[in-house]
Amino acid sequence: MERIQSGLNRRLLLSAFAALPTLIGPLGGRSARAQTDALPSWNDGPVKTSITSFVTRVTTQGGPDFVPMPERIATFDNDGTLWVEQPMYVQLAFTLDRVKAQAPSHPDWKDKQPFKAVLEGDFKALAAAGEKGLVELVAVTHADMTTTEFTKLVTDWLASARDARFKRPHTELVYQPMLELLAYLRANGFKTFIASGGGIEFMRPWTERVYGVPPEQVVGSSIKTRFQMRDTVPTLFRLPEINFIDDGPGKPVGINEHIGRRPTAAFGNSDGDLQMLQWTTLSAGPRLGLIVHHTDAEREYAYDRQAHFGKLDKALDAAPVNKWTVVNMKNDWKKIFPFQ
Amino acid sequence: MERIQSGLNRRLLLSAFAALPTLIGPLGGRSARAQTDALPSWNDGPVKTSITSFVTRVTTQGGPDFVPMPERIATFDNDGTLWVEQPMYVQLAFTLDRVKAQAPSHPDWKDKQPFKAVLEGDFKALAAAGEKGLVELVAVTHADMTTTEFTKLVTDWLASARDARFKRPHTELVYQPMLELLAYLRANGFKTFIASGGGIEFMRPWTERVYGVPPEQVVGSSIKTRFQMRDTVPTLFRLPEINFIDDGPGKPVGINEHIGRRPTAAFGNSDGDLQMLQWTTLSAGPRLGLIVHHTDAEREYAYDRQAHFGKLDKALDAAPVNKWTVVNMKNDWKKIFPFQ
Repeated sequence: MERIQSGLNRRLLLSAFAALPTLIGPLGGRSARAQTDALPSWNDGPVKTSITSFVTRVTTQGGPDFVPMPERIATFDNDGTLWVEQPMYVQLAFTLDRVKAQAPSHPDWKDKQPFKAVLEGDFKALAAAGEKGLVELVAVTHADMTTTEFTKLVTDWLASARDARFKRPHTELVYQPMLELLAYLRANGFKTFIASGGGIEFMRPWTERVYGVPPEQVVGSSIKTRFQMRDTVPTLFRLPEINFIDDGPGKPVGINEHIGRRPTAAFGNSDGDLQMLQWTTLSAGPRLGLIVHHTDAEREYAYDRQAHFGKLDKALDAAPVNKWTVVNMKNDWKKIFPFQ
Repeated sequence: MERIQSGLNRRLLLSAFAALPTLIGPLGGRSARAQTDALPSWNDGPVKTSITSFVTRVTTQGGPDFVPMPERIATFDNDGTLWVEQPMYVQLAFTLDRVKAQAPSHPDWKDKQPFKAVLEGDFKALAAAGEKGLVELVAVTHADMTTTEFTKLVTDWLASARDARFKRPHTELVYQPMLELLAYLRANGFKTFIASGGGIEFMRPWTERVYGVPPEQVVGSSIKTRFQMRDTVPTLFRLPEINFIDDGPGKPVGINEHIGRRPTAAFGNSDGDLQMLQWTTLSAGPRLGLIVHHTDAEREYAYDRQAHFGKLDKALDAAPVNKWTVVNMKNDWKKIFPFQ
């Protein structure tokens, strides 16, 4: 007893503990995990099994599909995959609110498109302004300030904005089954990244708190920034100029630029994720591609081929060809939101 | 005895081990680390102390300078900070070798600058071609191929190329004290990143093996890429167009784009690192800025204000003003390379 206790003294224990994560993997490896259901909000069935069997295969040491931990990279789209994107992208709601907040200092906006459309709530005119109009709105609302100032704008807005239907902050309208999936993958040695068409600096202030994804694992669209010394204070100033659009064929480009290796698993919900799913899965080795199909108008929304935001058409056709898992939200998810 | 052994069964141990890293930090926390010198190739003195006292302060829980682990971000320049950059950047040597290798399929190059200069070894003419000439050389040697093809070119070249003076592969000409510093910071909960003016895809094939820095923690200059489906094979094709120059005022921009938070510590050796050092250190909280000053012509090289590659002038003047640590290579490093 004495001998055992002295053998287990603090220093030895610390060294042993230190070495162990590399030997057994995070959260104690599979033997500890298998005891409980890591995905309680997912109904049993082929969709859930496609996820758990993939994870079992890539984490089975010595098995034919074993993937070393550094290569276990998973990328998640955000809008419609991790949080609600209807009736419009959250960042668009932020943009419209910013236009309204800034309007008093821009009296000319009430006669000038696309600002007029925003101030009058004329979504038809707004849609007619197209991508050029949107870029113009982003330029006046997202630029001409430092990165620190923008982060504060986003944080303050998210703290007060409420979803019109669910009367909740947007950061609560995240999908509980996907939160479980993120945690489950991380517990099995995956590094989880976001790869979103949304603004990288719009997401970073809250992804760590809400999804457990740190800023350095967020990939997204961006505007250009310029380094400036203001007296002795170094700043990054946001310029009204698009730097990168992380959507569609841009997603593999952004993933390569930020991560530098091909993901093993990718999760999306729209045609904007098609190329990310292709890039991830159409390669040797075990791969998981998954599409969240919004089929639940009662608990959330039902949309696909005709949707204005999150249109799912080509990627839905490509799913069976490429053996991507398609989540039928209504049938596969027991619960949609954490607060339910 | 029986009771203790059954209490220490595999499952319980695994759960305990799993929980511990979060409680005690990587590598057993400071109490285990303090037993040995983590920086054996650094001579004792104020430079070494400035590093160890900084690390002690930011990792002392409850202390005034404690930094939570997710915010322990350290960025390292590569050329001249982690590996040798004389008599020219390694990537420039690669570029010149590629021009020579490709020359047989380009008979016009022997009469056309800047190619003529490269083929004739006329460095004066090459210097005269300036940045425009260099961009042209990069375009023909680094583009018009897939990312996979480029990775193979770099890997093959590094396997056969030898430094003219040291007769070693470039990946062996890395600074042993800096390797120890990288490991020491990681052991104390830092995430270590590279932030280099060099090509991001030129570094990623080997940084994990050589520095322990995975591809997703490498920030560098890049050219544009385009996603293409070639039949059913997804590819990223490298275009002959500069995307981003991660040097000088570009470094804080690249760091912000990739990491999304301000580093706590930054390590460089030239004026190309000035803005990274400013961005990192001129902010509230504990900060470490460090410059490697090449002062050892015998064991490596001695250069600063007049250097063509790795010029250290403004940053050297800024060091005392901003309390940056300046490493005097000759005095502070016991050993330069791992093989010595």
